[in-house]
Amino acid sequence: MSEHMVVQEVATRDGFQIEPVFVETAEKIRLIDALAAAGFSRIEVSSFVSPKAVPALSDAAEVFAGIARRPGTIYVALVPNPKGAERALQARVDEINLVASVSETHNRANMGMTPEASIEGFGRIMETVRGSGVSVNATVATAFGCPFEGDQPADKVLAQVERYRALGVDGVTLADTTGMANPRQVAGLVERVLPALGADRLTLHFHNTRGLGLANVLAAYQAGARRFDAALGGLGGCPFAPGATGNICTEDLVSMAHEMGLATGLDLDALLALARDLPRLVGHDVPGQVARAGRPSDLHPAPPLKAA
Amino acid sequence: MSEHMVVQEVATRDGFQIEPVFVETAEKIRLIDALAAAGFSRIEVSSFVSPKAVPALSDAAEVFAGIARRPGTIYVALVPNPKGAERALQARVDEINLVASVSETHNRANMGMTPEASIEGFGRIMETVRGSGVSVNATVATAFGCPFEGDQPADKVLAQVERYRALGVDGVTLADTTGMANPRQVAGLVERVLPALGADRLTLHFHNTRGLGLANVLAAYQAGARRFDAALGGLGGCPFAPGATGNICTEDLVSMAHEMGLATGLDLDALLALARDLPRLVGHDVPGQVARAGRPSDLHPAPPLKAA
Repeated sequence: MSEHMVVQEVATRDGFQIEPVFVETAEKIRLIDALAAAGFSRIEVSSFVSPKAVPALSDAAEVFAGIARRPGTIYVALVPNPKGAERALQARVDEINLVASVSETHNRANMGMTPEASIEGFGRIMETVRGSGVSVNATVATAFGCPFEGDQPADKVLAQVERYRALGVDGVTLADTTGMANPRQVAGLVERVLPALGADRLTLHFHNTRGLGLANVLAAYQAGARRFDAALGGLGGCPFAPGATGNICTEDLVSMAHEMGLATGLDLDALLALARDLPRLVGHDVPGQVARAGRPSDLHPAPPLKAA
Repeated sequence: MSEHMVVQEVATRDGFQIEPVFVETAEKIRLIDALAAAGFSRIEVSSFVSPKAVPALSDAAEVFAGIARRPGTIYVALVPNPKGAERALQARVDEINLVASVSETHNRANMGMTPEASIEGFGRIMETVRGSGVSVNATVATAFGCPFEGDQPADKVLAQVERYRALGVDGVTLADTTGMANPRQVAGLVERVLPALGADRLTLHFHNTRGLGLANVLAAYQAGARRFDAALGGLGGCPFAPGATGNICTEDLVSMAHEMGLATGLDLDALLALARDLPRLVGHDVPGQVARAGRPSDLHPAPPLKAA
């Protein structure tokens, strides 16, 4: 297996969507352009959802219109239904990310329909997208547990992955939507899903809700996964755990990868500078650790000697 | 390999030592007794260091005099030098934990002497302790990197472990004193140290300074390590990284272990209750995540259905 990791940046989507402040469109565009310049091959830019449901991302079309399209970067939009897909195509996204939960209760609460109805809608979206050159990724939300139903059987997750493959999607994401996964479970599910998909078409999406985000990345990497979602500064969160940390933190993940000798193609110094600017945009501290502590290689002057 | 993990609680030592407030002796005793009741087989209670250097732990003797000695719990004290060892023996500790850094610069800054001089002192301590029934653990500080010198060669770490073994210590701890370790490095060092020591005599001490604490635990566990230091609430810290998180968090570690099916002998609910009481003792929020977010199995009522 190649010693690399592909990190997809999701801060402007999964991070900003739960912020109570509206980050100005011009700031979003500036951040996304800076992220692309830092080397990301994939950025989840925004969501084409109801502006009433997610006011923080109501400017998705303006953001897509304003960003510089850096060659080598795939600009992704999350899309919940056929209407969102049409808006995304009009905005000239490179990739659409579809989402349905494996848990029926979660999908009903999140999308207002059964997972079955969501996936039927995805079939119509695939027809709309066909021939457009836009690629499609599909996410299995609550793949590692549902905050309402609890454990989700691996067989149900695999069945949903197979439904997605039958639709002809280009990639699949397994999402630990509310941070319930543990490393052993992650390794087991990745080992079952990877043979059919291949490492280039599987993304893992972890939250650090219970502090296990990077341990879960490690377990997934060891099981052969290579693609991971992460949010600058560790933005994001969980509506059921106020004050809990959010998505795994991009710069902490990239620091770990580089310390382990894994190539990411990313400029960590640039990411740290962007992460340190986030509190200005969102109005609060963010959970990322490396931006606070510095990289392990950032040495300190020796203090004056103590008497014995 | 057996599917278990031994967690040594260090909050009242490594956590309290850097707190600006003095936690009252009676509160320390109450907390240590409650930790023992929650099932810990090992608790690092305090430090017999200069009260001028660490005023927060100046009551070490009173704390040892006040705690109930629960059968099955080993009560440990950190000791930097022969004078501290005498005080520890008088206080009837079960185990002494000696510390010297592999980095000369760090040991000079921390202990006011070379590592060589520290280890010579350990020889005198071993003579004092012999026949007392008190066991001795010795810690290699900065084993995964020094904040002043940077990388420390694995051969130097191994040489220090061999010095400790030649002194006849009962156990060895490899400490990532300022949170510089990464999982690959951890696996490599554990694999080299474990054959001579065995899993019952090796402890790993990680800090979560850069968010990798539990990923490092996972890597060490996979490499065969079974004993880990952790601090309730993730107390502790790093003088070079203000605001950085501290030791790995006990209740987050125990939650991970239980979710992975590893036995710890610990009552997680009791730990969560104690962790939630820490802000009262130290006067600030603590970094632990599970105390905030709840256990993965703590389910939520389904919210009202949304319209599609």
